[in-house]
Amino acid sequence: MERKEISNAVIKRLPRYHRYLGELLENGVERISSNDLSEKMNVTASQIRQDLNNFGGFGQQGYGYNVEYLYNEIAKILGIDRPNHMIIIGGGNFGQALTNYSNFERRGFIIQAIFDISPERIGKNVRNIPTLDMKELESFLSGHEIDIAVLTIPKNAAQEVTDRLVACGIRAIWNFAHLDLTVPDEVVVENVHLSESLMQLSYRISEKRDQE
Amino acid sequence: MERKEISNAVIKRLPRYHRYLGELLENGVERISSNDLSEKMNVTASQIRQDLNNFGGFGQQGYGYNVEYLYNEIAKILGIDRPNHMIIIGGGNFGQALTNYSNFERRGFIIQAIFDISPERIGKNVRNIPTLDMKELESFLSGHEIDIAVLTIPKNAAQEVTDRLVACGIRAIWNFAHLDLTVPDEVVVENVHLSESLMQLSYRISEKRDQE
Repeated sequence: MERKEISNAVIKRLPRYHRYLGELLENGVERISSNDLSEKMNVTASQIRQDLNNFGGFGQQGYGYNVEYLYNEIAKILGIDRPNHMIIIGGGNFGQALTNYSNFERRGFIIQAIFDISPERIGKNVRNIPTLDMKELESFLSGHEIDIAVLTIPKNAAQEVTDRLVACGIRAIWNFAHLDLTVPDEVVVENVHLSESLMQLSYRISEKRDQE
Repeated sequence: MERKEISNAVIKRLPRYHRYLGELLENGVERISSNDLSEKMNVTASQIRQDLNNFGGFGQQGYGYNVEYLYNEIAKILGIDRPNHMIIIGGGNFGQALTNYSNFERRGFIIQAIFDISPERIGKNVRNIPTLDMKELESFLSGHEIDIAVLTIPKNAAQEVTDRLVACGIRAIWNFAHLDLTVPDEVVVENVHLSESLMQLSYRISEKRDQE
């Protein structure tokens, strides 16, 4: 597929389109106009048309969008039309919560193993997924095609582990550790900094408080 | 404090400033120039000056920033100079992971209770924090000042619970449920849609794959 440079804002909106179209599909809706989709999603119809035009359109003037077709096309754009195999580094509460979250698997994100350093966790299964010793990371990765490594470890260990992952050929990291990772250009990182999200919320609270 | 309208982009960057300044403080750094801070944070020095000018500056020409002062001022702007009391709705893996995450408490986000509907969870403590019956939500909230409700429940229950929270006077929701909540204007919502974050990552992976 030829791709042009797509803005971050558009990329952030695509999963939301995918979610709404999935709900329409579940409700048996076959076709939707950009106006109706716009009302449902609370974005302007012209925004929707512009966003989708980045990928060649998909709509027919006067006929609206074919929901299933658009849903599948967005899945392709998002790269979730094929499985993404993942490992989780860090088998603590957070790693276990992510492992138990079945929604990821429904979207093709398949967790193959959890890695940990704690003897109490190593050897235990979480939902049939084994917890392996961090010492086995390199040998495991040499025998498995893994697309994404998920980091749910304390920040002081995160960069060192990242370097090991990158050396093994991992090209995508979903980072829950509370620091900015240094990676080569060919590696993509998506951060989920929960404390920062919570601080944005407290900012909004104090902004409202001052307005009152 | 007088506030002007601050862009979302700036608000998103503030917690990151706070984090870096906190690390400088821990390392005993008293003063930093916007150039040095810029290099550390990988944003331009003029970006830093612009961002901080939204709140009145804080720097002295030629002297740079006083790290502790700036750290404390950003904490005030973020509303984390006072405690934020929270409840967690949903005592599953995710709710427990958030409850066990001690970093929130260090930043003044104090979890007062977890609410659940499962008889197996109700009555149990997670790190000394009690799990209460959802039926007690209204009576609990009438007796406690709660700033933030955290939703870690399935999406089909999330809107109904939100309506109950709002009716009890909750004005801020940290939403992990995978839907867009409908709330009145006076209520602020910060979403953490993990599946969408993961899809953004898979988008980047397939974008890289196509480039190669």
